Amino acid sequence: MNSHDTWRVFVFRLGHRIERDKRVTTHVFLVARAFGAHGAFYSGQRDENIEESVRRVVKNWGGSFSVEYVENWVEKIKWWRKNGGETIHLTMYGLPLDEVIGKIRGSGKDKIVIVGGEKVPRLVYEIADWNVSITSQPHSEVGALSVFLHELYMGSELRREFENAKIKIVPQAKGKKIIRLD
Amino acid sequence: MNSHDTWRVFVFRLGHRIERDKRVTTHVFLVARAFGAHGAFYSGQRDENIEESVRRVVKNWGGSFSVEYVENWVEKIKWWRKNGGETIHLTMYGLPLDEVIGKIRGSGKDKIVIVGGEKVPRLVYEIADWNVSITSQPHSEVGALSVFLHELYMGSELRREFENAKIKIVPQAKGKKIIRLD
Repeated sequence: MNSHDTWRVFVFRLGHRIERDKRVTTHVFLVARAFGAHGAFYSGQRDENIEESVRRVVKNWGGSFSVEYVENWVEKIKWWRKNGGETIHLTMYGLPLDEVIGKIRGSGKDKIVIVGGEKVPRLVYEIADWNVSITSQPHSEVGALSVFLHELYMGSELRREFENAKIKIVPQAKGKKIIRLD
Repeated sequence: MNSHDTWRVFVFRLGHRIERDKRVTTHVFLVARAFGAHGAFYSGQRDENIEESVRRVVKNWGGSFSVEYVENWVEKIKWWRKNGGETIHLTMYGLPLDEVIGKIRGSGKDKIVIVGGEKVPRLVYEIADWNVSITSQPHSEVGALSVFLHELYMGSELRREFENAKIKIVPQAKGKKIIRLD
């Protein structure tokens, strides 16, 4: 665990579409887990396959990351804010990461990091406490999320250990070294 | 431009499959461009749609990023190394990013950053000068690439300007502000 654990971070993937988004949404969830988020929410189409594949990763690789489907994202986010949490929306239109990350890290609040798909409703920009850009160029919600979490945790996530892992990798200059712990 | 421009960085996406990888490979290319790489190569199946969609982004958003299809990746990488360039393979099995990034940044050599898909041939691990892990957890080649480039360029890529852009974003706390320059 890292030293930031007085607050928690969840990722919210908006508007998932099973056919089109299955791989990108999976990447969003796996990045969220690998980079230290505590769990993820998603809205749009419910996708049991993705939920199952994340469960399988957690079972093998450890930690307690979980994914929850949310029918009404507006209600969820309003509830979150009412309960003292803050929301950060990653968008190429937002304020530059390096300008705001210190304030976000220092707020002491639980955080939801919102990543959209193709079309993000205008309401998201208004409801978010922070609209943050990871470059002002078009690229990828997966790329944006990973750099955001990397900066939020100041690189400490790179060496994070996951509890109850059945599989662990021992870093190598060449080749693969995997330890099985079960 | 940034201060690292004595050396150049290209991204090599191995084993692209049109149906399965179209969105993830597009994300790889757009992250490469947005985070300051000079261009990308890819092997596997040739995909004119992806090439065209990257060209469209470059035309609108500026810079000179280009994508080149490579039939024989082994030859290309051998040629690259023979001509003084180095190769970095991003893999969860490699050495931790923070242990090696300083040496990679300081080498002064042109770089190819290799990202694989599902099954990466063993030869890649052997042929690479560096096998580098961005966490030792399963996640995403898009996430790995973005954090790698972010660390390579030490965050300077976040404020990069692209020449000859027709569209530019002016960062906003709320909403969208787009300037059209043509």
